[in-house]
Amino acid sequence: MEALHNKIREEGIVLSDQVLKVDAFLNHQIDPALMQAIGEEFARRFGGLGINKIVTIEASGIAPAVMTGLCLGVPVIFARKHASLTLTEHLLTASVYSFTKQTESTVAISPRHLQKGDKVLIIDDFLANGRASQALISIIHQAEAEVAGLGIVIEKSFQTGRAQLEEQGYRVESLARVASLAGGEVSFLPS
Amino acid sequence: MEALHNKIREEGIVLSDQVLKVDAFLNHQIDPALMQAIGEEFARRFGGLGINKIVTIEASGIAPAVMTGLCLGVPVIFARKHASLTLTEHLLTASVYSFTKQTESTVAISPRHLQKGDKVLIIDDFLANGRASQALISIIHQAEAEVAGLGIVIEKSFQTGRAQLEEQGYRVESLARVASLAGGEVSFLPS
Repeated sequence: MEALHNKIREEGIVLSDQVLKVDAFLNHQIDPALMQAIGEEFARRFGGLGINKIVTIEASGIAPAVMTGLCLGVPVIFARKHASLTLTEHLLTASVYSFTKQTESTVAISPRHLQKGDKVLIIDDFLANGRASQALISIIHQAEAEVAGLGIVIEKSFQTGRAQLEEQGYRVESLARVASLAGGEVSFLPS
Repeated sequence: MEALHNKIREEGIVLSDQVLKVDAFLNHQIDPALMQAIGEEFARRFGGLGINKIVTIEASGIAPAVMTGLCLGVPVIFARKHASLTLTEHLLTASVYSFTKQTESTVAISPRHLQKGDKVLIIDDFLANGRASQALISIIHQAEAEVAGLGIVIEKSFQTGRAQLEEQGYRVESLARVASLAGGEVSFLPS
């Protein structure tokens, strides 16, 4: 996606060979018009598949997921990372290790919002090793719902997440595929 | 806002005289079309004031804030509650106590995204005692930026947050003002 590539080139900061900081438009400050364009592109790629629900994880997945949900006309559920007093009933949970934050956390979705037979599109801001995606897949399967595909804003293609998901038979659509961050330069694969 | 009142009546769950659960459309599952209508309404109420930035707090503030940012044509910053490896520089911070979660947390915004002279609209999902809003106001003032107003999706008008903010001279626009949750019934003030 050209507009996203340009934004990453102009405003992304390469912190190391592994870490791309995009807090100028995705992870901390958000560019709403870019999120709308991202939502339209995911809707174009995943339209016509009978998707009736979108699942993401708080917090950075919410903006692209809600814009995609608006385009597809379906609700969005964001998995929560922390228990809340108002989310006390039985929950579907999975464990996820974040390499960025170096913490293990539990993500949770209420079974009231995810039902057997749902066709679910997973949307997330980043795909690296795929731990977050695998946790969401686990939760969706616990609900006996179906994973219709994964829409990723930025994929680090030099990590193993996409390959594992494709081996498992899932369709992955990434709007920017980062081939390398070596030498402080971002290079892209075709996406 | 009639559509929001109806949604709260139909899908909100009164957990106690103090707690209204709206995880069917705002705090866990999100209704994107409702968020768009909310964004349009905030843009209508706060348009023409020269606002150039929106600030909210992760996670439930993000969806209404991004829709408002889209309508006003301005970027959205969400304050983070947890430190991240990719958010390592000097941060503007404030402490906030959550009665719902019964935890004290620190919220943070990078000074790279909030500058002196910015006219900032605060958007949040709930206003109760106003602790989160006060933390965001503190951060905005640390950046020597200006608070142009606060846009709240659901206000618990029986708590003190709004009164305190108005005493401090801030304009508060709440799209649903909950007068009472007594007896399991939601009653609204005009909004």
